[in-house]
Amino acid sequence: MFESRRSALRGLLRAAEVEVDALLVTDLVNIRYLTGFTGSNAALLVHVGGDAASRFCTDGRYRAHAAAQVPELETVIDRASAMALAGSAGGWQVGRLGFESDAVTVDAHAAMADAAGAVELHRMPGLVQRLRAVKDDAEIAVLLAACAAADAALADLLAAGGLRPGRTEREVALDLEIRMREHGATGPAFETIVAAGAHSAVPHHSPTGAELRTGDLVKMDFGALVDGYHSDMTRTVVLGPAAAWQRELHELVAAAQAAGRAALRPGTAVSDVDGAARRVVEQAGRGAEFVHGLGHGVGLQIHEAPALARTGTGALAAGMVVTVEPGVYLEGQGGVRIEDTLVVRDGEPSLLTRTTRELVEV
Amino acid sequence: MFESRRSALRGLLRAAEVEVDALLVTDLVNIRYLTGFTGSNAALLVHVGGDAASRFCTDGRYRAHAAAQVPELETVIDRASAMALAGSAGGWQVGRLGFESDAVTVDAHAAMADAAGAVELHRMPGLVQRLRAVKDDAEIAVLLAACAAADAALADLLAAGGLRPGRTEREVALDLEIRMREHGATGPAFETIVAAGAHSAVPHHSPTGAELRTGDLVKMDFGALVDGYHSDMTRTVVLGPAAAWQRELHELVAAAQAAGRAALRPGTAVSDVDGAARRVVEQAGRGAEFVHGLGHGVGLQIHEAPALARTGTGALAAGMVVTVEPGVYLEGQGGVRIEDTLVVRDGEPSLLTRTTRELVEV
Repeated sequence: MFESRRSALRGLLRAAEVEVDALLVTDLVNIRYLTGFTGSNAALLVHVGGDAASRFCTDGRYRAHAAAQVPELETVIDRASAMALAGSAGGWQVGRLGFESDAVTVDAHAAMADAAGAVELHRMPGLVQRLRAVKDDAEIAVLLAACAAADAALADLLAAGGLRPGRTEREVALDLEIRMREHGATGPAFETIVAAGAHSAVPHHSPTGAELRTGDLVKMDFGALVDGYHSDMTRTVVLGPAAAWQRELHELVAAAQAAGRAALRPGTAVSDVDGAARRVVEQAGRGAEFVHGLGHGVGLQIHEAPALARTGTGALAAGMVVTVEPGVYLEGQGGVRIEDTLVVRDGEPSLLTRTTRELVEV
Repeated sequence: MFESRRSALRGLLRAAEVEVDALLVTDLVNIRYLTGFTGSNAALLVHVGGDAASRFCTDGRYRAHAAAQVPELETVIDRASAMALAGSAGGWQVGRLGFESDAVTVDAHAAMADAAGAVELHRMPGLVQRLRAVKDDAEIAVLLAACAAADAALADLLAAGGLRPGRTEREVALDLEIRMREHGATGPAFETIVAAGAHSAVPHHSPTGAELRTGDLVKMDFGALVDGYHSDMTRTVVLGPAAAWQRELHELVAAAQAAGRAALRPGTAVSDVDGAARRVVEQAGRGAEFVHGLGHGVGLQIHEAPALARTGTGALAAGMVVTVEPGVYLEGQGGVRIEDTLVVRDGEPSLLTRTTRELVEV
């Protein structure tokens, strides 16, 4: 699996406008994708000539990890991992070395250029991210497991009466996180959002000690981390019978979300997917209250390519895993967001999050 | 508090070798330190002329956060936050603009330079980190609360019989994390390490489904997150009566750790602090098995300045909060690490983590 990913990266390197002998990968998520290595310090030199000419570097803490996780690459042990590989590249038949200019800082680049000596450095941003945007079956299986953990946690929470007046946002958030762990998560995919009442109108609210009250909209945006992969789901429920405005708001967002999901087809421009959902909200006169993009890719990072936004570029491809999450927020009153994680397929997209999208009155 | 931090930053800007009119802060942790803002997209232009001349920028999702958390700064709403401020800097009496060259990527810098037009960009790395290294009393109080949550979680775990043969590393890790939440943590400070038996010899082991067995060394490295601040503690216990080699190994590491703690004095070079502990291990002939630095600063990040390492530069100052965590790892057999978080003081350092450092036989 990792070998074939490195091989696919070599294909991109050979096809790139800038001709290089190797790419120095320093983004840790990209390194994990290309090697399976999970430590916190590493660099990877992917040589176009193949794995035998490539090198992996980490520090002494991770010697055993490297031996177990990256046995097929020759490993250098050095704390200054990127500089060590840049400094030795000349000896490994590298005259022109690509680097991840979207991940390397200005200072690190200066140090790298120093270390590289006569080896020329060339900007090559986003190559591994481009590969990562399209998931293989093994990745989709893990993402499904992460989404299932979140689905199961919410189902358990509701079944246990975990959403009730008097509980705080923080208690509900912790409850969801523990239940996700019980269903196989190694942790939350991001800071769990539980936002009740007027707080639900804050798109990214941090849970507080505020108590849930009857009549509140309760917005929950949460996900599970499984084997390094993230899930992402939002549901907004009402504590008790929904008021008319709450029901209308929920219906509007559900309609926008359905339009966004229906637009998920290979070849569709990402800005058009955003537009399909946004149009529904705008036609209801609520465009100004939908203050964020429609969605984003999800995988080894909670936010990754592609961005489903008005300003996003490029088109969908089969195998991309994305969220669709319109929201309408009425300041001081309440907001609704409905979010699923889906796989783009030839034909209909498949839902990885499977909790009902109907309005739940708890 | 945030105002006085920005004011201290202005002092550093005025004293810097490079003369600038403002610093464009784009590192989110630094922005949180300088403003209290907790969202995931922001930029901050700190003008040497004061807060009235400074600007904050975030996107539409965080409009309410910005109003609540950063009321004293004029806020621009723009998704491309750093570019927006760089692009407008010329109109705000900025001719020379510093930027965080240790945080800004090569590509972001190119875009920033484009946006800035006639405004000159200058590298200014590490300024806010230098302020952050010395904690104020409010920060130390929060760090103490984070350390206390970890102490209490371990005490509860032991009292509940949570360390016993047959439990898996993963179960113990989850148990610790839940107990930290019960004691006020909003989450773990980092991926909890629970490493039993031979796994304890892997410095940064990820918990697995492996079961704890009688006679195992069990190394637990964990911390709590409270109000954005991290705690960090490691204890290594034995399941059942300790074997002689386990007791000796624990004694050696405890002696090294005590030497490291005793060396924590304002003015001491960080490399000398590392040396004080390392010498103890080396004199026992185990130097090659102590494969990492002695410790690191801890605060809004789990690893921050200063680095207590052989290659570290600079000296300690009163108010720094650091870990002291020597470890000796016998591959295939077992390892011991003992780690505390302490405040450097004039005189004796104060311990923030307070669990006993004696060898515990469970």
